[in-house]
This record gives sequence, structure tokens and C-alpha cells, in this order.
Amino acid sequence: MMRTVYINGDYLPENEAKVSIFDRGFLMADGVYEVTSVIDSKLVDFDRHVTRLQRSLKELEMKLPLSVRELLEVHQELVRANRLEEGLVYLQITRGAPPERDFSFPNPDETPQTIVLFTQSKPGLTDSPLAKQGIKVISIDDIRWGRRDIKTVQLLYPSMGKMMALKSGADDAWMLQDGYVTEGTSNNAFIVKNKKIITRPLSNKILHGITRASVMRFAKESQMELVERCFSIEEAKAADEAFITSASNFVMPVVEIDGVTLGDGTPGLVATRLREIYISECRKQAK
Amino acid sequence: MMRTVYINGDYLPENEAKVSIFDRGFLMADGVYEVTSVIDSKLVDFDRHVTRLQRSLKELEMKLPLSVRELLEVHQELVRANRLEEGLVYLQITRGAPPERDFSFPNPDETPQTIVLFTQSKPGLTDSPLAKQGIKVISIDDIRWGRRDIKTVQLLYPSMGKMMALKSGADDAWMLQDGYVTEGTSNNAFIVKNKKIITRPLSNKILHGITRASVMRFAKESQMELVERCFSIEEAKAADEAFITSASNFVMPVVEIDGVTLGDGTPGLVATRLREIYISECRKQAK
Repeated sequence: MMRTVYINGDYLPENEAKVSIFDRGFLMADGVYEVTSVIDSKLVDFDRHVTRLQRSLKELEMKLPLSVRELLEVHQELVRANRLEEGLVYLQITRGAPPERDFSFPNPDETPQTIVLFTQSKPGLTDSPLAKQGIKVISIDDIRWGRRDIKTVQLLYPSMGKMMALKSGADDAWMLQDGYVTEGTSNNAFIVKNKKIITRPLSNKILHGITRASVMRFAKESQMELVERCFSIEEAKAADEAFITSASNFVMPVVEIDGVTLGDGTPGLVATRLREIYISECRKQAK
Repeated sequence: MMRTVYINGDYLPENEAKVSIFDRGFLMADGVYEVTSVIDSKLVDFDRHVTRLQRSLKELEMKLPLSVRELLEVHQELVRANRLEEGLVYLQITRGAPPERDFSFPNPDETPQTIVLFTQSKPGLTDSPLAKQGIKVISIDDIRWGRRDIKTVQLLYPSMGKMMALKSGADDAWMLQDGYVTEGTSNNAFIVKNKKIITRPLSNKILHGITRASVMRFAKESQMELVERCFSIEEAKAADEAFITSASNFVMPVVEIDGVTLGDGTPGLVATRLREIYISECRKQAK
């Protein structure tokens, strides 16, 4: 089925959805994005994604080109038009296509921003075979830029990291800076030791994950012990269990780090329980 | 006049030149570029730009989608079609538009790379009023990723740096890491002290500038003393003169750094002489 996508006010078949080669998203990675997951044809944590989007835009002196209500309507219309049950809605906003390539920002009154949204169907998002098995990660150096709290499309290194992981027989990579784990290529990293859940505190060094925040909230509500502090890759390898969180993975158990098996090599109890709680809560709150 | 641009084998009017929203250049900054300057309707240092392009592509496991001869022909055809006398030819190659957004690289047999070229007219490139006056720079932290030797389109921070400079009344920004100047937002940085020309040595921390290399070669041929070593911003402010090099600036004198005037505030003798030599040599060798 040909997808319907949204671009600058129009709903178009995906093969007609194009942007100018002068778009600063294409020429300069001058754009931000969000990924909102869809369960039961409903949007998970939409409001929090918009709040983060507004923050990313503000940090780059850009604006939300639609009202929050209009943005919700576009998301919901794409879910409906594409009969999406489980998957995600991807949104990207760039500084638009000025007549000339230039390092200075174009005048926003003359160059409208570009906004693009499309859906991706991911059957098995909630009932994931991978989640029953757990994933393997390797560690790599984190050489990304210094403002990872802004969700920009500068994703080349995370993409390279994903390839390094796949080539070594793993599923993903955890990135290390100054000896500590920052995050996964497109997810936040957690470890569990003696029933204590440990994850790196927020800063410019990591993405402020929406799923991360929700999972932490649910963990606290379930009386689980949670500590925000940096942890090393050695500590991670010695942990009882580990997991990642992201909009397209929810809570995904990690069973191996750099070839070292965690626990008995199967998804841990805490990760499994948090995944259940997360999906259950999302089903209730999605809109 | 509507420009003619090149995209994936076609010469098109610029307003028809578009790429898919699924292009990895747009979604993930997964692409590299080159800028070749044009003087007297001829290409400057074309061969060296292609060599660097091939290196960038190789580092990202991509390939040159045309032969070097074909690439030269496209450059020359665009210069001819657009009656370009002074300016530049911009080239970008991305990993193409796979059917789905995914962090892992698409199979190159299924997803052809995207190649885009366009011209920018810059009258006054050689006889530049700005070069007679010199530019002002400010210093900012260098927070870019760790592989600046690969000429990727991850240009958001250099673009932000350019805006910081403009907002503070300067023309450009020099970036600092560990106390030392790395480079300008889209150019290499040089200082001159006691007739000695000083510039940072090549590494992953800076772009391996084609103009930088040419200017260094011409300086040596002219018996000027040249040292490749790191220098601090304090040393730069205490220098006799300073300048930047890039394909679109050639040699551009710097007369002020962070509000501190260099020398008498006019372009220095070494920078002025190197600019003359560079332009003269380019006129001879361009093709």
C-alpha cells in the first residue's frame, strides 16, 4: 500500500513527497525531529513529544509552524489514512529552503520552514519477539556533537554506530564518553544492580528521552528504587540486568554487553516488568 | 535567471530539483559534499576536490556514483549552462532514499545514492572588497563531532557559529577545543607572527582544506616560513596578522579577533601577498 505522507500542508502519496535540494535539512542538517509511537491506532505520549519538539525548536531559534491542535490532527489523520495499528509517526521540521545555500540562517519571514510527517508500520511493536529474547550491545566511543539534548537530524554517527554493532553480530551500540555510558544509538541506557535501577542523569550529553521519563515515573509509582547517576561500561557488564528505552522500542531488555552475558542471558525481571507496565499504561493514556 | 542544476543524471531547472523526504541526506545527514570555486569560468583545484571527496565517501562506505571524467563534465556543463564566471560549484552525495527510515545503512544494490550539483554565482570573488578590508572573528567552543576530516553535511553547529558571529557584529567564528583554535566555521585558520606562518596540523579535528594545502604550497615556493602546530586564541590575538582559507574565500585577511585589533587593523602583508599568489596560480591552473 502506498503511504500517505504530510508535507507543508499537503497530504501526498509517499512517492510524490519531495523537498527542494536547497532545503537546509538536506544541505546542512538544520532540522529537528520527533518519533511518536502508535498503539491500538492511538498516539503514545503525544503531548510530551510536542513539548520536547518545542524545546528543540527554541534552542535553534525556530518555531512550531502549526498549532499543537493542528499538529495532533495531522498525526491522527496520517494514522487514519494509513490504517496504522502499531508503529510510529515521524515528524521533521527544518529551517526551509532559502534561494541560496549560506551558513547564516535565512530570514524566517522570507523562507518558510519545512514540515514533514510520515508513518511507519511496525507490527509486533507491543508483542515483540525480540523483547522476549533481549538484545546484544557493543560499546563504542561517543564522538557526537555537544548538544545531544537537541533532537537534531545529525544522525550520521548513531547510524555508523548501528552498523558497527550489526557487523559485530550485536543489535545496537552503547556510546562511551570519559569512561561512562552516555546512551544507545537511538535510545537511553539503563542497568539494574541489586534491584536498583540506574540511569545517567539528564544533561547536554544525552537525549531527554520521553520513554525514559515515562518508564522512570512508572518505576517510582511501582516502588522500585531508581538512581540517576553515570555508570561505566565495566559496571554495566557486571550488572544483574540492563535495558534500553525509546519510542520505537518501549522497554527492550539487553542480555549481552561487549560479549559478556548478563545474568542467565535472558531478559531480566525488572526490564520485563517495566515493559509490561509501560505498554499497559500507554494503552490507557494513548489518544 | 533560473539556474540549471544536476540531480541523479538529469539537468533540471532549480525549482524542479527535489529529493525524496526519505533521502538519508534529509533524514540523517548521511551525506558528504564538496565546493569547487570557479574563476574565469574555470574550475579551481578540481582534481584535489575529487580526491578528498573519494576519501570522505570511503570513510562512510559510500562510492563515487560517476567516473571522475563524468563528474568533471557535469561541473563544466553546469558552469556553461549557467554562464558562471566567478562563483562555485556545490556537489553533494548522500546514501539515497531507502523505502523506510532506518539507522542501519540501506543495501547499496537496492538504494542508489543521490548526487546533486548546483552553481552559485559570486561576482567579486577574486576582486573582493571584503579582502581589502579584512574580516572580524569571534571565538566560540568547538562542540562538533569527532570526525571533522570527513566533509559531511552535519553543518548545523558551524551555521549556529556563523550566526553567533553575525549577532556580535563579527563576520565569522573561530572554534576552540582544549584551548586551541581548530578552524573557522567553514575555513581553515592561520596566524602570522614575526613573518612565520602558523596553522594547525591535519587530524580528525579539522577539515583537510584544499585551499589550505594550496596556500601552504605556494607559501613554501615563495620561501615563506611555515609551521604546522596548534595555537591558542591568546596567541592569535597577539599575532601580527591572521587569515582564513577556503574554496569560496581563497585567502581572506582577519583584522580583529574577539574585539582585539591585529596590527594596524588592516589586512597584513603576508595574507595580502598569499591572496595575490593564490589567485594568480589558480588562474593559470584552473580547467
